[in-house]
Amino acid sequence: MIRSGETICAPATSGGGAIAVIRISGPESIRICDSVFVSEVKGKTLAGQNGNTILYGTIRTGSEIIDDVLVSIFRAPNSYTGEDSVEISCHASPFIQQKILELLIKSGAVTALPGEFTQRAFLNGKMDLSQAEAVADLIASESERAHKLAINQMRGEFAEEIKKLRKDLLHFSSLIELELDFGEEDVEFADRNALRELITGVLKVTKDLCSSFVAGNAIKNGIPVTITGPPNTGKSTLLNRLLNEEKAIVSEIPGTTRDFIEDSVIIDGIKYRFIDTAGLRESSDVIENMGIKRAYEKISGAMVILLVADILEGSASLLPALESVRAHDGTEKKKLVVLINKCDSDDGSGRKELEGNIELRENESILFISAKTGDGIDQLRAHLQSITGIDRALSETVIVSNIRHYEALLRVTGSLERVLQGLETDLPEDLIAIDVRQAVHYLGEITGEITNDEILGNIFRNFCIGK
Amino acid sequence: MIRSGETICAPATSGGGAIAVIRISGPESIRICDSVFVSEVKGKTLAGQNGNTILYGTIRTGSEIIDDVLVSIFRAPNSYTGEDSVEISCHASPFIQQKILELLIKSGAVTALPGEFTQRAFLNGKMDLSQAEAVADLIASESERAHKLAINQMRGEFAEEIKKLRKDLLHFSSLIELELDFGEEDVEFADRNALRELITGVLKVTKDLCSSFVAGNAIKNGIPVTITGPPNTGKSTLLNRLLNEEKAIVSEIPGTTRDFIEDSVIIDGIKYRFIDTAGLRESSDVIENMGIKRAYEKISGAMVILLVADILEGSASLLPALESVRAHDGTEKKKLVVLINKCDSDDGSGRKELEGNIELRENESILFISAKTGDGIDQLRAHLQSITGIDRALSETVIVSNIRHYEALLRVTGSLERVLQGLETDLPEDLIAIDVRQAVHYLGEITGEITNDEILGNIFRNFCIGK
Repeated sequence: MIRSGETICAPATSGGGAIAVIRISGPESIRICDSVFVSEVKGKTLAGQNGNTILYGTIRTGSEIIDDVLVSIFRAPNSYTGEDSVEISCHASPFIQQKILELLIKSGAVTALPGEFTQRAFLNGKMDLSQAEAVADLIASESERAHKLAINQMRGEFAEEIKKLRKDLLHFSSLIELELDFGEEDVEFADRNALRELITGVLKVTKDLCSSFVAGNAIKNGIPVTITGPPNTGKSTLLNRLLNEEKAIVSEIPGTTRDFIEDSVIIDGIKYRFIDTAGLRESSDVIENMGIKRAYEKISGAMVILLVADILEGSASLLPALESVRAHDGTEKKKLVVLINKCDSDDGSGRKELEGNIELRENESILFISAKTGDGIDQLRAHLQSITGIDRALSETVIVSNIRHYEALLRVTGSLERVLQGLETDLPEDLIAIDVRQAVHYLGEITGEITNDEILGNIFRNFCIGK
Repeated sequence: MIRSGETICAPATSGGGAIAVIRISGPESIRICDSVFVSEVKGKTLAGQNGNTILYGTIRTGSEIIDDVLVSIFRAPNSYTGEDSVEISCHASPFIQQKILELLIKSGAVTALPGEFTQRAFLNGKMDLSQAEAVADLIASESERAHKLAINQMRGEFAEEIKKLRKDLLHFSSLIELELDFGEEDVEFADRNALRELITGVLKVTKDLCSSFVAGNAIKNGIPVTITGPPNTGKSTLLNRLLNEEKAIVSEIPGTTRDFIEDSVIIDGIKYRFIDTAGLRESSDVIENMGIKRAYEKISGAMVILLVADILEGSASLLPALESVRAHDGTEKKKLVVLINKCDSDDGSGRKELEGNIELRENESILFISAKTGDGIDQLRAHLQSITGIDRALSETVIVSNIRHYEALLRVTGSLERVLQGLETDLPEDLIAIDVRQAVHYLGEITGEITNDEILGNIFRNFCIGK
């Protein structure tokens, strides 16, 4: 997987558009490009150029011209990868791109693996591992908040935090190791209280980071919200209202069945994935029951459940639907919002009847809205941010959004808890030292100070080609 | 439509990939980019850079970082458009691209219209109109020959030919105009024989160019070939054989109905669009008849018809199918190839029977093949190039592939024929001069020496955004 002597090449843009960019990086990149490039200015070669400059000319094979191109030259270490690199900007014809890649490979380049450019940037010390991972997140970011999360991580805010924690622990570790060296003499270089305080402090940060993951992950991937409820309560109208109000990036992902559709909408910079399910009701119809079963499956994956009811139908319609949702496995851990719809048609008696007859549990809330007129929709949007913890997460400077980091931080937390326990029970220093070293190790895995081929392989395999 | 004072911006690459390029061109492009760009090297601005250089830094709005970017600077007239231009290479997130474009527009840029960059290149004398049109063809080129056609045209081979013809006619025209000036004195500055020779020469070239259009257009857009014939004669096997043998770029375009599928395959650098139709037979089934009707419609659009027959079924099966195809309107103008398939199962008697009973007309030919074993497939491929005139066209240096050029050349041809006629019938010079001027005018329209907003609008409207 890891290679560095080769010169790699790959398209960095994907089909369509007016221009395409082909990237080349490695020790031979300038020589290889020179072998297929003829500058417009006679006699000029890429080899004769300074870094960060551009030449105009043609890519040729023999006397045959493949394309008019711009070639950008980057000289090590001032390039993305830290190596000599070249970018060829050509016309976006699939034929031309394929032909240029063929010529580069014929001249000695090899096809880049997914993420290999960024992997080289990491291996050459241009960025740490968490920053490299953020590059992929940045490319995939669709909402303002997901973008902000990724760019902060790419620019090193998260890495700084982790490195600081690691440094603190290394200091602690060195004091303990010192005591171990003097083991026989029973000296204490580290004040036990100061140590306890330090570990408690680090533990607090890692726990906070861990608990930011749910929101961080939701910000990154979108918050799954299931819309359910009895038939004809206005679920689709609600969805359309949420979509239309925003005039934001909206995409309709066709479900695997026609029983539900998924729509993404950006609300206040956060992406929500609204999943409209088949009406929930008891039915003897086999096909319809299949639809209902799938609706429940969708509920399982949701972070928030919106149960839509018709105010005119009253509690007689709502309560069975509510029980039905509550009875489903796992719903008690989700945020359930009972949305009483069609309030524009209510004279007040409907609301009174419902409020008198519904008892909400923890994690449940009720809102009165009208999808038709838009009344209560603003409150619903604010409510969604509040119950998902997103609003709190947004006030934090560092949020964990990567599951690999989250898992490493969970392990760090576990190790540190054992250290604290050890300090309290006066465990021998050498045993405490093991747990500290483990915590240091796991923190190092996040930023890549400690790494191995498998970790790198897992990370860069999911990158796109050309990055 | 035509504007030049504004600074325009647009994405030049399309969705996906690792990086995206945003293009800016116009007098304010460097200032506008400087207002959103902060160089990594403190104090460096784009305004302080030479042309054809690259700066690394960030795009910011206030203190918020949108992305790490590379910015390429081009100074007039050394840019694609001939104006000051900037290219921002950012991460390929739709959010980031949208945000950067928003910032550029807020700083004074306007969104570019389709083709506006190339239009400016034309208006600033960087290329003539036929070269500008070739840019769009180049981007769309899928096969080696279509690519070669476009790149030759973009690099000016076609324009040179047209300009030479125009220059010859202008010379002729000036001699006639001179005679008109001395009209009363009845002098002849132009030797009538030399004039006739010149016009005959130009006419020969324009006629040759016109007749290259069928092949040129086919090379550019792919040659439509309909595969038809009685059911179970191996049409699909033949198609698969043609596709598999090539291991080339193959795409399956789902037809609007299930009655036919279209497959593109590159054979010897030429794209063929094979359209497999429903089996042709008399039927009382309404649905099946609809399929047959559509098969005939597909035949109408084809350049070549491959009628596949089973050698074992003999002329009894082939002849009615052949009559049925021949009876269809317009087939007499197409190339019909009777493909006798399954020859691997024939002991020679089938071939003898067929050869004895089939009479071919002009434009018709017969080949004996086996789609199963591949026998005769090489001959079929060579035959396709030969009957479509592609092989002859490939030996020409200049081929017309653009319908606008073709139509203009038809008009030139018409005018020149009237000139020749005029010379023969001793028409007054002033009448001859009108036709010569018209021919000069139409030639000028091709290269854009003569143009107007409507022509430009029609051409650049079909370009993609960002080119």
